[in-house]
Amino acid sequence: MRLGILGSGLMGGKLGTLWAKAGHEVTFSYARSQSKLDRLAREAGAKAGTVAKAVEGADAVLLAVHWSRISDVLEQAGELDGKIVLNCCVPLDEQNRDLVVGVTTSGAEELARLRPRARWVSAFNTSPSEAFFDVFAGRDREPRPQLLYYGDDNGAKRAAAGLIEDIGYEPLDVGPLRTGRFAEPFAMVTAELAYSQPGGAKLTYRFSRFR
Amino acid sequence: MRLGILGSGLMGGKLGTLWAKAGHEVTFSYARSQSKLDRLAREAGAKAGTVAKAVEGADAVLLAVHWSRISDVLEQAGELDGKIVLNCCVPLDEQNRDLVVGVTTSGAEELARLRPRARWVSAFNTSPSEAFFDVFAGRDREPRPQLLYYGDDNGAKRAAAGLIEDIGYEPLDVGPLRTGRFAEPFAMVTAELAYSQPGGAKLTYRFSRFR
Repeated sequence: MRLGILGSGLMGGKLGTLWAKAGHEVTFSYARSQSKLDRLAREAGAKAGTVAKAVEGADAVLLAVHWSRISDVLEQAGELDGKIVLNCCVPLDEQNRDLVVGVTTSGAEELARLRPRARWVSAFNTSPSEAFFDVFAGRDREPRPQLLYYGDDNGAKRAAAGLIEDIGYEPLDVGPLRTGRFAEPFAMVTAELAYSQPGGAKLTYRFSRFR
Repeated sequence: MRLGILGSGLMGGKLGTLWAKAGHEVTFSYARSQSKLDRLAREAGAKAGTVAKAVEGADAVLLAVHWSRISDVLEQAGELDGKIVLNCCVPLDEQNRDLVVGVTTSGAEELARLRPRARWVSAFNTSPSEAFFDVFAGRDREPRPQLLYYGDDNGAKRAAAGLIEDIGYEPLDVGPLRTGRFAEPFAMVTAELAYSQPGGAKLTYRFSRFR
């Protein structure tokens, strides 16, 4: 395919390079400097150009800029009528800490406001209950499925981690209670996979890392 | 531990049963009927009681009710001062379709509003770019890491799935563009794990299912 990369930073630079390796015809655009763009293109065996050039004639374009650059790059990209646009942008604030669109709080934080002296930990919300008995039955087999938990009270989190292990999961700390604004929607992703996509509801997950 | 289950439905019923199996002293409360509560307790070798009874003397309580029942159960639970509260409630609407707290839209949907005639697909946002080259290098080894994608245009989604496979991921369809309101926060979970928790940024994930 002919692919236009709009935003040739960490995401776009790597994806465009790999797509070029995979045999696609790639045009990089929109980096911090022209020299970076040229180097990317040279090393990948691809082209470098303006946003308009990258869009023109492309079968698909990748939108991969910081959210603060969206209006600028879309203006340069034009109307995009009928174009396949692959978007990897998340609406991040300048500090890359919060979503500036759509997400403002969480159930976890609201509950802590209702009972501020309780020691809140959130867990189990990112797993369909359908999986629990199978997880428990397989609790001695590695690698175990993981389960996210988060909270502001370290002692309560240690207790929660033990209770998570009792069910058979490997507890996975994802930080403070405010992570709820991200983990609760993730619970909705697991629900979508479990209940609306093929495969069944006994869903688990594991994160892995390359060394 | 002495554990009080507030909300003995799908989640609470199963977790309490497994915790009882694991040797904890469990009290079930708050089910649709007293007979269900009694049966759960009998089958698990646990107790059944009122919410107040389940809270009283518990080392930790599990809050596992539908969001619409939160104020009722909290009122029965009292102040919970100093209690460890494990929360698995997500602020779901009555249809279990949307989050009624904190989440209203997504970057994906806003972009589609800005360019309504483009064929939008979201992808790659739930992976740190640090992992891409390793995923590509390992693309012939099964099981491959997965990558979520979502959109409203099936042809564009097929093209996106191909481009995701080219990088080395197994594409995982999570439905329409509005899934962005859940998947973008999930991107923040992956960022928290990659950049704020131990283990490094070359993070991938896979969902699995029990049969």
